[in-house]
Order: sequence, then structure tokens, then C-alpha cells
Amino acid sequence: MNACILSIGDELVLGQTVDTNSAWLSQQLAAVGCDIVAHATVGDDQLACETAIRELSQRANVLVISGGIGPTEDDLTRQALAAVLDAPLERNAEWMEALETFFASRKRPMPEINKVQALIPRGATMLYNHAGTAAGIRATVGTCEVFSTPGVPKEMKAMFTRDVLPWVSEKTGGAVVASRTLHTFGLGESAVAEKLGPLMTRGRNPSVGTTVANGYVSLRLNVRAASREEGVRQLDDTEAACRGALADVIFGSGTDALPAAVGTMLKAAPGQPTVATAESCTGGLVAKMLTDVGGSSGYFHYGWVTYANTAKAEQLGVSESLLAQHGAVSEPVAIAMADGARSRANSTYALSLTGIAGPDGGTPDKPVGTVWIALASPTGTTARKFVMPGDREMVRDRSAKMALTMLRFALLGKPMPF
Amino acid sequence: MNACILSIGDELVLGQTVDTNSAWLSQQLAAVGCDIVAHATVGDDQLACETAIRELSQRANVLVISGGIGPTEDDLTRQALAAVLDAPLERNAEWMEALETFFASRKRPMPEINKVQALIPRGATMLYNHAGTAAGIRATVGTCEVFSTPGVPKEMKAMFTRDVLPWVSEKTGGAVVASRTLHTFGLGESAVAEKLGPLMTRGRNPSVGTTVANGYVSLRLNVRAASREEGVRQLDDTEAACRGALADVIFGSGTDALPAAVGTMLKAAPGQPTVATAESCTGGLVAKMLTDVGGSSGYFHYGWVTYANTAKAEQLGVSESLLAQHGAVSEPVAIAMADGARSRANSTYALSLTGIAGPDGGTPDKPVGTVWIALASPTGTTARKFVMPGDREMVRDRSAKMALTMLRFALLGKPMPF
Repeated sequence: MNACILSIGDELVLGQTVDTNSAWLSQQLAAVGCDIVAHATVGDDQLACETAIRELSQRANVLVISGGIGPTEDDLTRQALAAVLDAPLERNAEWMEALETFFASRKRPMPEINKVQALIPRGATMLYNHAGTAAGIRATVGTCEVFSTPGVPKEMKAMFTRDVLPWVSEKTGGAVVASRTLHTFGLGESAVAEKLGPLMTRGRNPSVGTTVANGYVSLRLNVRAASREEGVRQLDDTEAACRGALADVIFGSGTDALPAAVGTMLKAAPGQPTVATAESCTGGLVAKMLTDVGGSSGYFHYGWVTYANTAKAEQLGVSESLLAQHGAVSEPVAIAMADGARSRANSTYALSLTGIAGPDGGTPDKPVGTVWIALASPTGTTARKFVMPGDREMVRDRSAKMALTMLRFALLGKPMPF
Repeated sequence: MNACILSIGDELVLGQTVDTNSAWLSQQLAAVGCDIVAHATVGDDQLACETAIRELSQRANVLVISGGIGPTEDDLTRQALAAVLDAPLERNAEWMEALETFFASRKRPMPEINKVQALIPRGATMLYNHAGTAAGIRATVGTCEVFSTPGVPKEMKAMFTRDVLPWVSEKTGGAVVASRTLHTFGLGESAVAEKLGPLMTRGRNPSVGTTVANGYVSLRLNVRAASREEGVRQLDDTEAACRGALADVIFGSGTDALPAAVGTMLKAAPGQPTVATAESCTGGLVAKMLTDVGGSSGYFHYGWVTYANTAKAEQLGVSESLLAQHGAVSEPVAIAMADGARSRANSTYALSLTGIAGPDGGTPDKPVGTVWIALASPTGTTARKFVMPGDREMVRDRSAKMALTMLRFALLGKPMPF
């Protein structure tokens, strides 16, 4: 089963946007046993699109296109596909209705130009878009099945997962490559690799590799096996070995996110514990992460963003003398913030953060990246100092994730192993 | 002058690495007047490389290849190029000497496999690599000049800048393409396109296109002109026309972000105004965005995340009867939250948000996505209701950006035009 991927857009071909869709699509297609023959990118030019569709459809059994189905004049994928198919574009009644419902529910008139998004070449199939106004198109070009999806990554991914992947999976039938992902936070990539040791040996089946994204080090387990059952069994064994090596540093798998993992633990813990937040340097990011999770109102009720010292004093009861004596970025202030938040919110736990996110404000004693994180709990309040790497955004992001991780280990009843 | 770009590597075609070289090369080539016809990516497969080189060299005057010239068995670009040229590979004496010097200076013996990196098709030219052991290759295929460069971005960029760009620049003879980006928030892509009208006509020079990312609709202005000065003058005119059509819906250009744009306005406004936040459904995201900006402590001091009704009452003074009568997601509660935050923070402005982010909690009256946003200011407090599209993450993100936009228009002293 050969696959090609085509990205369409001036912003891509001109290099103004880096194409991340193609890499994602490749991973998905490879994971179900496709050989990826080629990626191609062309601009918003109908003839270039036609040429690319013709060429790539001759080299593959499946061609996934992303981009060029927006409502504006520079979106020409549907015209190009119609030209390649030598079929007229026809208005798809089902999608026209969906568009009308979409705009009606927003109490906005449908702009005239959006109607073009319901045009589908005769004989092709409309693919439903649950996240936007661009319908996808599925058509057969020679011996190749062509799927035209939106360029917006979120819309493309939803449509691909729902309408393309199952078809491809069925076609590749049997030659199973299964994979699994485990997520960690707190240790660096090389520390994770050291703990995994021979599990990461090249050529091992299942293979174990690491990838780093947004401070998370993830383990990717890939297996080649004759059947799905056999693959799953082998993945189970390797996952158990990875968990043996890393224990609670692993917070989740697959699509699990750290805030959701913490939320699940809070919901499952006896006595319905709650958590409050008191943030300075992270400016609300910890509260934002906690509330990323649907249903977080069950365990999160109160958060403070005390960016100024007066706010720390007035809102959390941090004493002026403590602030004057130790400075805002200090262990006593972090502890006083967490205690103040816990008592005012009447919560089981409270997290506080005070630090120097940069780019300014660093000193030799307290360089940019210095962050005190405190956790107040029924058994007492502890604080840890970290010096986070990177720029303002990274310092804030890593600090927030570390705060959630401190809470996670408290809920586990174990000390943090780093 | 047409250009194509070819990336070679299994890690690229399998999606394990996102190809950033092609975008960088496109920007460089476009900036000196090339039309970028296409990007292509193939794996470490000699036949696929040959096919790609043949096809792309027929479509362009210049083809830049990156990748596939390392020392290992899976590096096959030089073999593919030799096959396309129908020329034998010959050892390049100059590069052999450079390799020997390279390893001698590191007091390491040269591994046998590195010698392959001195092989060049007969008739082709060796391109010096100042940062690694892979020599580049320049060859003429039909009417196309082909440059083979390393896949390592640093090595590729050095070689391209030194040995490719000057040749291309000379050939295009000053035909400059310059570009500019303008960012908007608040109107959908089709509404922006309707306002721009004939400015978006295909074939116009400068061209105006739209892209959507994270709720922002951005305008890309690209110009072809005989000289940089001429191009800049034409871009100035087109930018003025776009601003005429969209006015204050445009919040920035280039690398400007919405929170920084608002921050800049707050800093520039007379009397050093400050802003406080009172958030329910966004859970701290507005505070987080405001404090994304270095130096935001100058105008942001206090934020509340009042996720529970008790928190709204205790922390912001929203009356229990108001909550009971209208529900938390209502105009009076949004207004009371903003007023409470403004008076407690003693700030110039306060933003409040209360809504239903989903996935649960929607009702026929107040569906998921319903968000009330209020702005308290010295001249009074106003609230607006929005029904935001998308999932929980999108509802929260768009709501936060809309809140910042309401503040932006208040600072402009103008009503929001949507």
C-alpha cells in the first residue's frame, strides 16, 4: 500500500509556514502499514495542483491532500480535482444544509463566498467537517483513492481520523504495525534514556524511542507483528518493562495530558479533595491548565493571580515584612502564598508559584528561571526551588507543569524522584 | 526564474522529523525573485531520488536538494544524481584532502565510510562544506541547475548562502519579492475577504491572501518588483489599502501578538492604566495571555479565577441573589464580576468572563460556547454575549482573545466593529 501526501498553499510553498501536516499524516499512514512514497507541496495555483494530483495519484494507492478548500478565491483544490476527474463541480445539498445550520446557529448570515465550499466534483463523495466550514472530498483518480482535507491542522486531523484512516487500515489489512506512547515529565531525555537502558537498543522489536515536546519526554513503542493480537501482547510486555524502569515518572499514555491525569487522580481520591492556586510568575497558567479539563469544577474552585506584591499581601495575606525581608521570589513567600490560598479557598491542597520568568528581572543570586513552587496540604506545606531553562514562555510553561507534578506525587503519597 | 526544492530522508517522509529546510529555502529563494513551483520529499531510496530529480529539474531553472549526502549506506543522493546525469562517480581530490585534514585536526582516523563523501559525478562541481564532512554537488541537468546540499540545517544554510544564493540572485537580476503580514482578530476569514474585495483578486501585484491560525485571520502581502525600493513602495500602498478596508480590525503586523499589542497600548496610554481580570470559564487564560508579555507587571497586578459560585461571591462580591436569579453565565453576573475586580484591584479596567466551555453544561438556552464578557472602565461597564465555536479549548481560547480585543477597542476609544 503506497501513499503520497500533497500540501497546498502559497504560505507553504513560499516558506512562510512550515508544513507540519505532512509529517503528522505520514506518521499516521506509516503506523497502519503504508509505505510513504513522497510528499509534495505546491502553491495556490490550479495548474500546479492538477499536475501534482495527476503525478502523485500515479505513484500511490492513496493520496491525502491538505489545504486549498477554504472559501476564498485562492482556494483551488476542488477546481483542480474536478479538472483531473474531468467532472463538473456540483453543489452538495447535504453540505449546503450543514453550512446554513452552522451560520444560523451563530446568528450570522452566510457570506456568499462560503457557498463555494459545498461544491464537489460529480461522482466524488463529500467528507463531513465537524470543526469548520470546508467539506472534504473523496474521489477515485485512476487506481488511486484521493482524499482532500482542510489545511487547518485540527480540522484535517479530525477528518483524517474519521474518514480516511479506517479505509486505509482496512486496505493494509494484517501487516500490522501497532504503536503506543507513554508520557513523562520531570526528567530530561538522556536521564530517561539511561533508565530505559537496553530497551532502547536499535533493532529491538518492539522498538522504544524517545521524543521531546513541550518539556514532556515521551516514549514511542512500535511493534511489527504478524497479527494485531501478537503485536498488542508484545507491546504489553515492553510497556511493562518501561514502567518498571521509570515507575511514576510516567504520568500517562496515548492522548493523556498531564492536567487530565492530575484531575483523574483528584476525582478518584477519597474525600473529594480540591486544589487552589496562587500564582505570580506563571500569571494564571496553572489555573488555566487545571481547567483545561472538562469537569474540573469538581476539584478547582478558586485561583489567584497575585502579580504585584500588594496583591500577594491583600489577597493572600502574605505579610509585608516577609516580602520586604526575603523578596517576592523566596521560600517563605511561596509558602505564605500557598497557605493563604489554601485557607481562603478552604481547599485540600494549594499550589503557589513565585519566580523570575524574564526576560528582565534576573540577578546573580536569582537568575531568570528561578522559581519557588510550594504545595500546601493537610500534612503541611513544602516548597522547592527550581531554575528552569529557556525563555519566558518556557520558564512559565515548565514551572506550571512542575507544580502539577508536585501535586501528582503528593496524591500518590510518594516523594518526587527528581 | 522557477525553483523547486527537494528534501531527501526516511525520517522526513515517515514524518518523524518535520521538514523545516524547505520552508527556509523557499523564503530565501522567494526573497531574490524566484517563483517556487513545488517542494517534494522522498525517502532514502535511489530510484525515488532519481525520479524526483528528473521531474523537478524539468519544471524549474534551479533545484535545491537537501539531505542524502551523509556517509552511511542510506545516503544516496550522489548516486541518484550520477544516474540522472549518466556520469560515473569520481573521487574529488580537493575534498579528500579536506576530509583528511578534518579528521587529522581532531586526531581521529578517517572512517573508511567517510571516503564516499568525496565522490562527485564526472562533470559536476564540488561545493565546500565549512561545517561538516558532506561536500555539496552542483550539476546541470538539462536546463536546470541542481544544487545538492546537506540535510543538517546549519550545514545546508551555510552552503546555500555561500554557493547557491549568489548564483540565483545574479540570474534573477534584482527581481525582488518582498512580503508583509498583517494580523486581525474578530472577523471570520470570509468576512475579512469580503471587506478586502478586489484587493484579493488573483494575479494582482502585490497579491493579498488570507491564512487562519488559532482564530487569527492574517493577510499575506507579496510583491514582485524590479527593485527592493520599488517593492517596498508597492507594499506600502497595498498595506494602506488593506488598512483602509479593515481599519482597526488589524491589530498588528509581522511577529506582533495580540497580548503584546494590547500591552503596548496600555503602556502608551496616558495615566498608566492598569487592567485586572476575573475569570470563570477561561480559568486564568486571560491573565496568562496578558502576562505572556515581558514587563506586563507594569499594567497587570491582580487576577482572580473564580471558578465556583462561592468564589465569585467571596472574592469579587457578586451577590448570591444575582447568581441565584440569573445564573453564573449571565450579563448581570459578568458585570458584577468585572466591577468587583476593578474595585478590589483598584485598576483602570477589569475584564470578566463567565461561560460554558463544555463539553458538558450546555442547555438549549445557553449552549456550549455561550460566553459573557464584561469590561469595566472609568466610563462604565458593558457586557457582550458571544457563542464561540469549537471544542472546550477553542471556546476558551477565542473567548480570551475576544476579551483582549474588547479592551483594545476601549483603549482605541472606538466601538468594536463586529
